Amino acid sequence: MTYCVAILLPEGLVLASDTRTNAGVDQVAVFPKMHVFEVPGERVITLLTSGNLAITQSVVNRLREAVRTGADKTLETAASMFEAATLVGDEIRAAFERDASHLKNQNSEFSANILLSGQIKGEAPRLFHIYSAGNFIESSDETPYFQIGETKYGKPIIDRVVNHKSDMMDAVKCVLISFDSTIRSNLSVAAPIDLMLYHTDSFNADSRQRITEKDEYYTTIRQGWSDGLKKVFSALPNPTWTFDK
Amino acid sequence: MTYCVAILLPEGLVLASDTRTNAGVDQVAVFPKMHVFEVPGERVITLLTSGNLAITQSVVNRLREAVRTGADKTLETAASMFEAATLVGDEIRAAFERDASHLKNQNSEFSANILLSGQIKGEAPRLFHIYSAGNFIESSDETPYFQIGETKYGKPIIDRVVNHKSDMMDAVKCVLISFDSTIRSNLSVAAPIDLMLYHTDSFNADSRQRITEKDEYYTTIRQGWSDGLKKVFSALPNPTWTFDK
Repeated sequence: MTYCVAILLPEGLVLASDTRTNAGVDQVAVFPKMHVFEVPGERVITLLTSGNLAITQSVVNRLREAVRTGADKTLETAASMFEAATLVGDEIRAAFERDASHLKNQNSEFSANILLSGQIKGEAPRLFHIYSAGNFIESSDETPYFQIGETKYGKPIIDRVVNHKSDMMDAVKCVLISFDSTIRSNLSVAAPIDLMLYHTDSFNADSRQRITEKDEYYTTIRQGWSDGLKKVFSALPNPTWTFDK
Repeated sequence: MTYCVAILLPEGLVLASDTRTNAGVDQVAVFPKMHVFEVPGERVITLLTSGNLAITQSVVNRLREAVRTGADKTLETAASMFEAATLVGDEIRAAFERDASHLKNQNSEFSANILLSGQIKGEAPRLFHIYSAGNFIESSDETPYFQIGETKYGKPIIDRVVNHKSDMMDAVKCVLISFDSTIRSNLSVAAPIDLMLYHTDSFNADSRQRITEKDEYYTTIRQGWSDGLKKVFSALPNPTWTFDK
């Protein structure tokens, strides 16, 4: 499985992805699911991927090949993030044409979900969720974040503390707690976590961090959250209904 | 959808189920998913049900019919909870034989998950999870609780605070928080919540409560939990990594 989150805030983007892949419980590996396209000073575009690894890797590779060979339209030349999302969606559709019937022969499903986000000079930062069908939706003030992969365990905490005006460091804290809840509950999601902050109008992709399980700050957050929850829980009153014994 | 939880503790059982059913978003209704079989002073057996409502209702109805008509083996005569679980599993299998092909004709899946728990004189209280295939597993010290339906949103809090020696009232608090997290995230799970406490060796099923959204204690718990989480969150330190800007 996979867990990726992307949050769009006034200060910029908070992006995170786990690195575990598995093809059955007996085939577990570490692969990055965060892919960055950068033209320093002009654009930063990041893809977070989930689904069939062969499909998402082929999509990312072909997007890179297009840049390398100077194709007509690429993530480095797209005029807007909307155009970039369309390119990625088209690449997913091309992968479907190429692979879907062969996957079906092996009883494998065609699945690829991608969170595309970033900023191209002339636009504000934007965030899109691109589906296996190649179509996509964009985030909004009411829904400033997207998740893909194993989304449920880590959703309640984001819903409770993040909104479209949240402080960026609060969002980082929240994302790490969200990952902790997910990793505790689903063995197929695991650290290291790739974290990227994109600061609005910076047009550089340097704020990246690979967070291992032993990372000091991650450990502090996990422990502090766990202890804090238990304290809040203990302080809640017992039921006041009368129960027969 | 549905959300049901059952926890087995030294003091007894904590059982809870939501009451929302839906056949599409345009057909939402309230149905109880908690079904109690009681022989006062001798046994209490409770079923929490999820899946296709027509299937689970037919299973429960046939189990009741068996009691009414004095059938050979019933939930009121089963010698052990294991035998009771076998009876329920057999009833699910009979429903499959009767209904599955007809459901398939309508592109409907055969699905029925049941949490069976209770106590029969001569045994300690026991808890089983019975699957659509009619087979089942029993809880253990390491896994003293089962969930069915929309399980993920509400799982992290149970994993953090409940174990097989937990205090019963702590488990009640925890279950209500777990329901709150689920109800906030999934529209197809909703109050009122049916809550039942079974006290070990009481052999009566009187400790039941229907909890509406406006229930004073439920409101206190939800508010206290939400406020507490936010406080814990705010108190956590910001990241210590250096990020480029």
